[in-house]
Amino acid sequence: MKNYIGYKCSICNAEFAPASILYNCPSCEGNLDVILDYSEIRRKYRIEDITSRTEQSLWRYGPLLPVQDPGGEGTPLRAAGWTPVYTPERLAASLGLQQLWVKDEGRNPTASFKDRASAVLVARAREIKAETIVTASTGNAGAALAGMAAAVGHRAVIFAPKTAPQAKIAQLLVYGAHVILVDGNYDSAFDLTIEASKEFGWYCRNTGYNPFTAEGKKTGAFEIWEQVMMRMPESDKPLCVFVSVGDGNIISGLHKGFKDLQKLGWLETIPRLFGVQSELSPAIANAFEAGNETIIPVSATTIADSISVDLPRDGVRAVRAAVETHGAFIKVADADIITAIADLGINGIFAEPAGSTALAGLKKAVSTGIIEADDPVLVINSGNGLKDVRAAMMAVTNAAIIEPTMTALKKHLEEKGK
Amino acid sequence: MKNYIGYKCSICNAEFAPASILYNCPSCEGNLDVILDYSEIRRKYRIEDITSRTEQSLWRYGPLLPVQDPGGEGTPLRAAGWTPVYTPERLAASLGLQQLWVKDEGRNPTASFKDRASAVLVARAREIKAETIVTASTGNAGAALAGMAAAVGHRAVIFAPKTAPQAKIAQLLVYGAHVILVDGNYDSAFDLTIEASKEFGWYCRNTGYNPFTAEGKKTGAFEIWEQVMMRMPESDKPLCVFVSVGDGNIISGLHKGFKDLQKLGWLETIPRLFGVQSELSPAIANAFEAGNETIIPVSATTIADSISVDLPRDGVRAVRAAVETHGAFIKVADADIITAIADLGINGIFAEPAGSTALAGLKKAVSTGIIEADDPVLVINSGNGLKDVRAAMMAVTNAAIIEPTMTALKKHLEEKGK
Repeated sequence: MKNYIGYKCSICNAEFAPASILYNCPSCEGNLDVILDYSEIRRKYRIEDITSRTEQSLWRYGPLLPVQDPGGEGTPLRAAGWTPVYTPERLAASLGLQQLWVKDEGRNPTASFKDRASAVLVARAREIKAETIVTASTGNAGAALAGMAAAVGHRAVIFAPKTAPQAKIAQLLVYGAHVILVDGNYDSAFDLTIEASKEFGWYCRNTGYNPFTAEGKKTGAFEIWEQVMMRMPESDKPLCVFVSVGDGNIISGLHKGFKDLQKLGWLETIPRLFGVQSELSPAIANAFEAGNETIIPVSATTIADSISVDLPRDGVRAVRAAVETHGAFIKVADADIITAIADLGINGIFAEPAGSTALAGLKKAVSTGIIEADDPVLVINSGNGLKDVRAAMMAVTNAAIIEPTMTALKKHLEEKGK
Repeated sequence: MKNYIGYKCSICNAEFAPASILYNCPSCEGNLDVILDYSEIRRKYRIEDITSRTEQSLWRYGPLLPVQDPGGEGTPLRAAGWTPVYTPERLAASLGLQQLWVKDEGRNPTASFKDRASAVLVARAREIKAETIVTASTGNAGAALAGMAAAVGHRAVIFAPKTAPQAKIAQLLVYGAHVILVDGNYDSAFDLTIEASKEFGWYCRNTGYNPFTAEGKKTGAFEIWEQVMMRMPESDKPLCVFVSVGDGNIISGLHKGFKDLQKLGWLETIPRLFGVQSELSPAIANAFEAGNETIIPVSATTIADSISVDLPRDGVRAVRAAVETHGAFIKVADADIITAIADLGINGIFAEPAGSTALAGLKKAVSTGIIEADDPVLVINSGNGLKDVRAAMMAVTNAAIIEPTMTALKKHLEEKGK
């Protein structure tokens, strides 16, 4: 049993058999959805067969994933996902919410949500015997691919714009990836990746373009279902999930995951999905506001580098995720993204800007009445704050420097007003 | 039941009742060991009562910890520990070892081993109703205290040398701690902390000085016991655990944990404990080599900032941990610490210098014959590489820059030899 029976184009609805295809739709270039063999899965598994599994990673959902045997036992590949969900009471109170959860994706092996896509992608590469995996990335997706490929000894080639911060490049290099900096922007790196993949037979991980990225990311939805929805108190109101949006692939992946559960008859109501974008990278939110699915490229400049995207590669499905679930897209200012880093920090959660963006969106939704006190809400922190220390420094005031004496300390405390 | 019945001084063997004491020995200033109520614990619990607990954190060992109710449910305080253990086959093969495990402490909530001590400390502070907790730290211990305190709304004051890496300072500030940088080294920060704690009634977390730090860190031993020792193949040779050493409190804490298990009759042979120090911060290794317990301060300059310590605060117990378990102390060059970052990286594990130090020590132990091919070995990565990206950059060579064209890419690949 292969778990999945084919692909369906999200734009033209054309269907394809599993063996016939690797990437996007050959007719219209739309992103493809993987079609699971829902009736076969339902026949073989009950909910308890999944939730009683002992594997504390995204691989506990193996029967719902389009790969057979991920391999990589005893490596970080098998330790991706199953991230903790917190219930920060003080944060909930400050927002006036009765129920609030924060899912901390910064605790993945390479410290971001992207490990979900890369873990499944690398497992897929192993299955189709692709030795080299290539991607275009300026940061988290590249780090995730480099880390997951290193875990199992696959070769990763990462194309990044030469303007990418040295620190982010360092993480790719430490994982042993072949890093090639291009004298151009992210889009030129993206295009070159696809050309190189065709020329050299490398397996291309590019977000959205490869249908397995959303299949990895959908495991976030499975975990929200198991960790939160199956345990939350009865409510007339559906769960509202807030997530930051760049390329649009995380929100699309979450949507896919919830739809899979619904098709299996394991979930009645899909949570309302709220995508949050920076005002300085709002291509998908613009389309949502215009009431259509036409993604018009922008010139993105947000400080939240992980969601700074001119031309989102999964925009259409991202718009649909919000529309079909009665969610919304919300735009936030970069200043509010920075403030939200501190909001999470004082609750013991350290987020990169793209992670705190989701909370910034929730704060706006609360203040504008989109979210009400009795709406149960889950916020996803998509990446660890250690990924972007410069941004973290903008959220705080510098520490004082004193001589190591009690006299100096007392003077400092007096000045501080305690 | 309080779980513990008192303290015993590690230097003069004086014993103290639980209520009588907060920090080190009032007579000789030696660090105190917490004495559990071993017979009571044994009467109430079997091994299976512990290992069948569902809590996926260090709190699964609650019955063996000297705090009653940690509180903080649904926060990162309750998500510390229970870190993954990897079995990197290529790394084992390159070292010629038959069995190798790497325990990745970088996946703790604030990304280092220190979360174990701070989680237990903050729980203890809650129990004794101490609102402000203070510590001296070069980084990780401070971040751990700041994060764990933030999780449950306690106030943290952190004294750090002004030379600590910016990523680490940013993390303290984001967690909302009151950070005071001292114009001096770690030791001057340490002394000032104790003075301030006495003056202002703050609860002092300082490593070793506070007996509960080792109690938190011992949970690392419990996990090694449950995750590895209970599952490893029968062997004539005991497990060898490699861990980096700065203050000496982690290796002492691990030793305490294994001794607790032994006293409960749950563990026959304690693993051999190998402490690894940088040649540029070797105070404890010096004492070990001299065959005594006299810790003579050094002037520490290693790049591995988390283990750069002039005067280790838990040196005596650290020496004993190696001596009593037939382990050793090993000194490594900073260049080898940097190389070991890359060694772990290509296996998908990103370590800060203090984390890779343990592997550097293992490599030296293998090359000098201290460790043989059939010794089962576990290496602890004590902290996440994202904590010190500057050091990571020293472990790799820079990436090439090319024009975004296939012509340029092909030329680059030819030059690279594919």
